[in-house]
Amino acid sequence: MIYTLNHKDAHSKARTGSIRLPHGVVQTPAFMPVGTNGTVKALHHQTIEEMGYSMILGNTYHLYLRPGIEVIKAYGGLHQFSSWDHNILTDSGGFQIFSLATFRKIREEGVTFRSHIDGSSHHLTPEKVVEIQRYLNSDIQMCLDVCTPPDLPKKEALKAMRITHDWARRAKSAWESYSDTYEGKLFGIVQGNFYEDLRKESAEYIASLDFPGIAIGGLSVGEPFNTYAEFLAMTVESLPSDKPLYVMGIGTPSYIFEAVENGIDIFDCVFATRTARNGSVFTDHGLINMKKVINEFDQGPIQEGCTCRACTTYSKGYMRHLFKTNEILGAMLASEHNLTYLHNLMHNIRMSIEADRFTEYKREYLSAYERK
Amino acid sequence: MIYTLNHKDAHSKARTGSIRLPHGVVQTPAFMPVGTNGTVKALHHQTIEEMGYSMILGNTYHLYLRPGIEVIKAYGGLHQFSSWDHNILTDSGGFQIFSLATFRKIREEGVTFRSHIDGSSHHLTPEKVVEIQRYLNSDIQMCLDVCTPPDLPKKEALKAMRITHDWARRAKSAWESYSDTYEGKLFGIVQGNFYEDLRKESAEYIASLDFPGIAIGGLSVGEPFNTYAEFLAMTVESLPSDKPLYVMGIGTPSYIFEAVENGIDIFDCVFATRTARNGSVFTDHGLINMKKVINEFDQGPIQEGCTCRACTTYSKGYMRHLFKTNEILGAMLASEHNLTYLHNLMHNIRMSIEADRFTEYKREYLSAYERK
Repeated sequence: MIYTLNHKDAHSKARTGSIRLPHGVVQTPAFMPVGTNGTVKALHHQTIEEMGYSMILGNTYHLYLRPGIEVIKAYGGLHQFSSWDHNILTDSGGFQIFSLATFRKIREEGVTFRSHIDGSSHHLTPEKVVEIQRYLNSDIQMCLDVCTPPDLPKKEALKAMRITHDWARRAKSAWESYSDTYEGKLFGIVQGNFYEDLRKESAEYIASLDFPGIAIGGLSVGEPFNTYAEFLAMTVESLPSDKPLYVMGIGTPSYIFEAVENGIDIFDCVFATRTARNGSVFTDHGLINMKKVINEFDQGPIQEGCTCRACTTYSKGYMRHLFKTNEILGAMLASEHNLTYLHNLMHNIRMSIEADRFTEYKREYLSAYERK
Repeated sequence: MIYTLNHKDAHSKARTGSIRLPHGVVQTPAFMPVGTNGTVKALHHQTIEEMGYSMILGNTYHLYLRPGIEVIKAYGGLHQFSSWDHNILTDSGGFQIFSLATFRKIREEGVTFRSHIDGSSHHLTPEKVVEIQRYLNSDIQMCLDVCTPPDLPKKEALKAMRITHDWARRAKSAWESYSDTYEGKLFGIVQGNFYEDLRKESAEYIASLDFPGIAIGGLSVGEPFNTYAEFLAMTVESLPSDKPLYVMGIGTPSYIFEAVENGIDIFDCVFATRTARNGSVFTDHGLINMKKVINEFDQGPIQEGCTCRACTTYSKGYMRHLFKTNEILGAMLASEHNLTYLHNLMHNIRMSIEADRFTEYKREYLSAYERK
């Protein structure tokens, strides 16, 4: 068992705990910054480390295409290649094959797709994806899955889920065959689209395979917030409580609070860094855009009390100037702010759980955050 | 007098010394990183400070257009606005009006031009440019000058020079009128295009105005290296030796060595940071481009022995990957390397002068640098 429960909130499923992984212990609930190409965009890994993050995410699809697995293998893995000594979780590429590749053909045996970069053709199987992530030396690796869009007819959703389940079983066998030489953990992924019975069936099947941890995929893909909350709660019902649970692709305060309230331990999202590069930054009163003219003469920081370099060194007026002149430093500082902000938010969430006041903290925080 | 001579090389005009300025002392000869918009592109000012730089450059033309002088004035100057506590030299905008503005009309009284950003019309006089740089609180500010292209007919070059001289005289009067409230130093600029008699006349006239320091403009604008060297040497002949001398717009090793050999104390150039953003980095064996396939599996640093974060943390293979995937971290690391490299080069140059072996060091360095 890699998960240790520390404290369960008295009034919700929210819980604090820790996940033991080859590159150290992760205190949960935890947000993971996304480093698609083996770099969290516009930030040094050293800065990510100084913020206190102990696990980041890398994208198998992107790294497989560039620089290619042979390169990263020659360096002894993604940690050495990218100079990051803490944990790395890699996704399986399933979502990117679904959302980025210019052509894809899914068969029971595997998936064929064309690269969005150069149109080159590639074939992946669940076994090969386990092997690739082993070469990346991922601390947590994910099973190849079939991702589906919302509003898919049930028949197709069922077919995709059945293939996902078969691939999960095959991935687990492949992963077990490497147990002598590879310490990374394999997580299964629950799918089932937005059909209650399929979600339940998928959660039960994935739970039955006894992975070290379980992820919930196919949420936050465009559905209304209430649908997200409903399917999240329902899926968790069928999952074990002694394993780390991961919701893929969420990273705004309201989605994070909802996930934590349902007992989710880890999550990731590109939103914090992508929106930062567009000049949008987290504050206790919601997202604000640095480019707005209201910031022009504002000598105050983005967020009073924030410990990041942007808030302790620079004013909103200077930040606005950087974005108006398209200076790279704007992206660097806003990215540092947003990830610092989320790290501090997760710290506060963990403290609130340990004090049995998570639901109170959630209400207080979101009422300020959402009232602009 | 703001310049103190420390040591003159026994075999050339090269010299070490220091310039006393409102935000500290600058050890010379010194290279100045360029921070066009009040930020050295892709770097924190803290990083520039840690490298050891004590003076950076800002562009009056850019800052006047964005964020505008009213904004920077409200912050109390460019140091506070951009969080840089060391010296700032600002150019006058003359070169940018010549090279960037979409329309310009120069009269004896001043210059009218259109912004390259939004086409808006602006009028500047030598007096107004002094006032603008006073609001920026520049430690060294430059006179407005008329910049001319190579191959200009002599009659026009003469006319431009005469206006530059008249503007220099007017700028000095304006600057002197602020002496009670502003500590920054005004430098005159020698022009005269590539006509020997005009260069000589310009150097003598600018020297006669008794500025705290003197700059040489209109070099490294496309002329052959030998022409640069010839006009540099000739211009310096007519300049005083007790004032800091500045060649504007140079920043590659061969141009730097040539300037230092002629007794030049400071210089600036965008080359180091601009070329870094394109993936080109300084090494002891010349510029190399990180994108080349030869770097793919290379686990060594850009330059053995370099103290920058790129060289102490990352491999050439990872740097190549960052540039191939257009990651911002590539620009950040290459910029940090190139400015660290130039700072270390200037340190070595100063040491060689103090040991009376500058010409030897120049020959050794350039023979390795230029032999690819």
